[in-house]
Amino acid sequence: MKKIGVFTSGGDAPGMNACIRAIVRAAVYHGVEVYGIHRGYKGMIKGEIYKMDSHTVSNIIQKGGTILRSARSKEFLTPEGRKQAYEQLQKHEIEGLVCIGGDGTFTGANIFFEEYGVPIVGAPGTIDNDLYGTDYTIGYDTAVNTALDAIDKIRDTADSHDRVFFIEVMGRDSGYIAIPCAIGGGAEIVMIPEAETSIENVVDALRTGWNRSKTSFIVIIAEGDEAGNASQVAAQVQEALPHMDARVTILGHVQRGGAPTAADRMLASQLGIACVEGLLEGQKCVMAGIINGDLVYTPFIETITKDKLINPHFVKMVNILSV
Amino acid sequence: MKKIGVFTSGGDAPGMNACIRAIVRAAVYHGVEVYGIHRGYKGMIKGEIYKMDSHTVSNIIQKGGTILRSARSKEFLTPEGRKQAYEQLQKHEIEGLVCIGGDGTFTGANIFFEEYGVPIVGAPGTIDNDLYGTDYTIGYDTAVNTALDAIDKIRDTADSHDRVFFIEVMGRDSGYIAIPCAIGGGAEIVMIPEAETSIENVVDALRTGWNRSKTSFIVIIAEGDEAGNASQVAAQVQEALPHMDARVTILGHVQRGGAPTAADRMLASQLGIACVEGLLEGQKCVMAGIINGDLVYTPFIETITKDKLINPHFVKMVNILSV
Amino acid sequence: MKKIGVFTSGGDAPGMNACIRAIVRAAVYHGVEVYGIHRGYKGMIKGEIYKMDSHTVSNIIQKGGTILRSARSKEFLTPEGRKQAYEQLQKHEIEGLVCIGGDGTFTGANIFFEEYGVPIVGAPGTIDNDLYGTDYTIGYDTAVNTALDAIDKIRDTADSHDRVFFIEVMGRDSGYIAIPCAIGGGAEIVMIPEAETSIENVVDALRTGWNRSKTSFIVIIAEGDEAGNASQVAAQVQEALPHMDARVTILGHVQRGGAPTAADRMLASQLGIACVEGLLEGQKCVMAGIINGDLVYTPFIETITKDKLINPHFVKMVNILSV
Amino acid sequence: MKKIGVFTSGGDAPGMNACIRAIVRAAVYHGVEVYGIHRGYKGMIKGEIYKMDSHTVSNIIQKGGTILRSARSKEFLTPEGRKQAYEQLQKHEIEGLVCIGGDGTFTGANIFFEEYGVPIVGAPGTIDNDLYGTDYTIGYDTAVNTALDAIDKIRDTADSHDRVFFIEVMGRDSGYIAIPCAIGGGAEIVMIPEAETSIENVVDALRTGWNRSKTSFIVIIAEGDEAGNASQVAAQVQEALPHMDARVTILGHVQRGGAPTAADRMLASQLGIACVEGLLEGQKCVMAGIINGDLVYTPFIETITKDKLINPHFVKMVNILSV
Repeated sequence: MKKIGVFTSGGDAPGMNACIRAIVRAAVYHGVEVYGIHRGYKGMIKGEIYKMDSHTVSNIIQKGGTILRSARSKEFLTPEGRKQAYEQLQKHEIEGLVCIGGDGTFTGANIFFEEYGVPIVGAPGTIDNDLYGTDYTIGYDTAVNTALDAIDKIRDTADSHDRVFFIEVMGRDSGYIAIPCAIGGGAEIVMIPEAETSIENVVDALRTGWNRSKTSFIVIIAEGDEAGNASQVAAQVQEALPHMDARVTILGHVQRGGAPTAADRMLASQLGIACVEGLLEGQKCVMAGIINGDLVYTPFIETITKDKLINPHFVKMVNILSV
Repeated sequence: MKKIGVFTSGGDAPGMNACIRAIVRAAVYHGVEVYGIHRGYKGMIKGEIYKMDSHTVSNIIQKGGTILRSARSKEFLTPEGRKQAYEQLQKHEIEGLVCIGGDGTFTGANIFFEEYGVPIVGAPGTIDNDLYGTDYTIGYDTAVNTALDAIDKIRDTADSHDRVFFIEVMGRDSGYIAIPCAIGGGAEIVMIPEAETSIENVVDALRTGWNRSKTSFIVIIAEGDEAGNASQVAAQVQEALPHMDARVTILGHVQRGGAPTAADRMLASQLGIACVEGLLEGQKCVMAGIINGDLVYTPFIETITKDKLINPHFVKMVNILSV
Repeated sequence: MKKIGVFTSGGDAPGMNACIRAIVRAAVYHGVEVYGIHRGYKGMIKGEIYKMDSHTVSNIIQKGGTILRSARSKEFLTPEGRKQAYEQLQKHEIEGLVCIGGDGTFTGANIFFEEYGVPIVGAPGTIDNDLYGTDYTIGYDTAVNTALDAIDKIRDTADSHDRVFFIEVMGRDSGYIAIPCAIGGGAEIVMIPEAETSIENVVDALRTGWNRSKTSFIVIIAEGDEAGNASQVAAQVQEALPHMDARVTILGHVQRGGAPTAADRMLASQLGIACVEGLLEGQKCVMAGIINGDLVYTPFIETITKDKLINPHFVKMVNILSV
Repeated sequence: MKKIGVFTSGGDAPGMNACIRAIVRAAVYHGVEVYGIHRGYKGMIKGEIYKMDSHTVSNIIQKGGTILRSARSKEFLTPEGRKQAYEQLQKHEIEGLVCIGGDGTFTGANIFFEEYGVPIVGAPGTIDNDLYGTDYTIGYDTAVNTALDAIDKIRDTADSHDRVFFIEVMGRDSGYIAIPCAIGGGAEIVMIPEAETSIENVVDALRTGWNRSKTSFIVIIAEGDEAGNASQVAAQVQEALPHMDARVTILGHVQRGGAPTAADRMLASQLGIACVEGLLEGQKCVMAGIINGDLVYTPFIETITKDKLINPHFVKMVNILSV
């Protein structure tokens, strides 16, 4: 393999640049030419493909976002779109691909490999962490720390005013971000898609605390919780407990940005190298991940279809710690 | 004067604790006993009054929020409430007061002094900065830096995805927070209550940028802008420019918390000392502030009724810098 | 077991307070009385032992340092000292102990258990991470992120001035802190006790880079590297490469402080609960740790005598990434 | 004036990039071509001069360091060097210059203008703040906040271990950085070049505190204090007070880097615009500064020769606050 391409796709995540850097440098190290494909599958179709070298990725390890940019592509969902993408790769004589992204990225990669046989190795880049085949995804640790930093600030004001704060963190399908935010943020209650929490439970818990003369509370809600979003939950609780002063904060896109943490830079660097070395060693349609400290390649199809379950013990921890 | 009381009132602001510390230490330094009144006027009425000393304020200079807590008091708005407050002060032999807060706090202080003659000196503690009688209020610099830090993170993701972000910052009546966020955050557009910005202007500016092949934008909106809040503005812009990908982030209460910046700790320390020394020198119903580097005492009535205007040049700067 | 004691010992580490909080809350949750012993073994001997409850540990999860303080005790190294310590525990009817610390702490705990049979369970609290029986120690992740943040800042100035920076990070016996700092900080060279790096190698690497027109470099040195400390290494390199502008920064004690990261708060909370539950379930002279996501109790004697080896692959990564 | 050049010189400071951005955008806004001169006077002599436009300065406002790089030039101290520099400017048809730097930069600019009549306007870019003609220099606020953040971390460990920390901050000739670090960092003692502090005073103050059962202390030392550097002071104090556990931390180059604070971005943006507009309006050999909120142009010769005195009241504040 003499030429490979690299791209990022889906929602951006801190550490994507650190991973791009590792991919480019590993390619250079192993004597392989490397091309950056801009805007994911969209740019692949359009031929936004540029030569990269060691210098191109200087001083980006600490940057949030992705220098290769990202986009969603409707065309790549069509056979015609994928054909154009393949032709662009052929035109540039690109023999293998490394992609950084999540579910959607790997679904596309899987079809593309099946149709055109271009070997692809992926790195898990998403703040959500809900991807089978790796203990942690690139960007997750940073997103959690960013959210936690915001929660620390909100607790200052909650304590000063005897308020109940309902803080919504990212996580459409999972509580991976919500859990460490709740435990690390000293929250009294956590609401995640994986565990049922009724409004009644929340109201009871707050009332019990209040009667024990506790006057400020933090409730962490994953955006995908079945009880509704933070505003909906807060409104219902406020109705049941009118003497409490309920406030809502939705952390939002802040969680996607920022300089990656040390753990994310390490993970991104390890997996970036592993993607290139995997490709050179013949891996074809897999995601590189770290499980229990070991490098593991998992077929894309498994990363897409299998679930990674959150440790149920963590929910119980919130109860013990808010005693 | 042998005994003084100190309290915080209204919305909390970073640096309030640094100011409390300075007040307590200055009192000790000048041989005056000092009492902490919890929860503002509410606690004054209820007699939540406790002796403080040098140790009580150890290791709080860096803490957000207020260790004396804050609250809004409806009772203090009534003559009966103020009578009870005065009786509590008499009971504790408190001869003078130092308060940290904003508009509402000083309005209450002004009435209280007029009715009972208890000398009060105030320190401006509010993140909004829209208080006549001081160049900066305690908490303002921290709030701006917190907001800016969030905007830096959002720009990472805006750049990666070619998006328009509408970011709402605090400021119900003024653009004091919005302006440095826009200039420091590299925003293309700023919308503040003090200057009229129509949706048409915003749409035009974005369209012009887009046509010059600029693909990501940041619009900073003070919560009190006359064009509506960030969600309303974004919805209208999205309708006019359907090809753009508009997103909204409301920074919210995060802006109130966090460790105060160096400037806020300095200001809080200076003004805390100035409040105590002013009280001891016979100041009676005034706010301590720093104007052009000099300590100035301004009657509460002026701080409440006069406007502090934002430098109009700053709005023009946003235009120059986003060229 | 009705009453237990908790103390911190040795160098402080971020997350110790989060761990103390978890220990106290877990004890309360399980209906056990809990006493805080101040200043480690020193305070145990002197009887600095105070009742704690759920409130005592409110709002400390985010604080650096240890509210129980720490100290080194020469007296506890003597049989007489340990006898006094035991008598103090008896006096307070303390039946079990939880300690947070490192090598020295566990050595003391081991002897104390052997002599007096007081069950002790320990949590690994040290920024160094070189402790057998757990993948990570409490404080390590925070220390690495603090160091990395400083390195990011230094790189700004290195790049602006074409300089070689020799940055010394903590790690008397190991490169656990140095390695992620080097990989995450984009360093060209890392020098750790576990791998031999001669001054000649460093000079060669810098000269090679320079000849490839690279003009700024970062060299990370663990304080315990066999080639000497950062100042010594820098002086020798400067002599060999007089045209380069070498600078030295010793990060020092900054690495010990600060709010713990999310990962450290999670780890501290998990292990704090595990210490209490282990003690209640009959564990006696062991350290609680997390290995590959699982809770593991390791006899103190093993944590003291066995080595935890750093992944040698990480050193190679530095070479690949600085290509 | 149709073409102007911009360069940075001397030690780098956070906010230099924000200032470069403002200079370039203001030039574009006013229809003037702008060239970046790399590595200060050194690059001017060598002709490292490149066209810049609005895009060149995208997304740099938050970056530490200087994208134009900086260097010290011995050649520019010679008439021959300055002649070459002038010829390069003529070759590129550059009619005016904007420089960002400190004392040394302005000394060079002053001579250059006198010899060749090239109009130059400067922006004060140095973390030291000891420059006549402006209340604050670009980079100062950031450096202070960076130092303060480190001091907050060190206090965590000081408190946990009953230690005396001697922390050296930048400031070869002044205490501008040391003073807010001491006040904001809750230090007991500050030692600056502008005020005499004998070792005896320090020893007395520590002993007095110790006898009042205070057990941890922070002493802030400006690097240029006449009593010696932090290591020398600590050694003498340790000898006089052998029962105390003295530690030294030298913050060093970390203080130069990092994302600029809001205040530094505002100042840099204001002054960058002012430099360009000043040049276009006929200013010739002056530094732009902000004094009491107003834009002021001060002849370089005054900025070099006049002193900016630190407010002596600030030193007294440290005493009051550490009571």
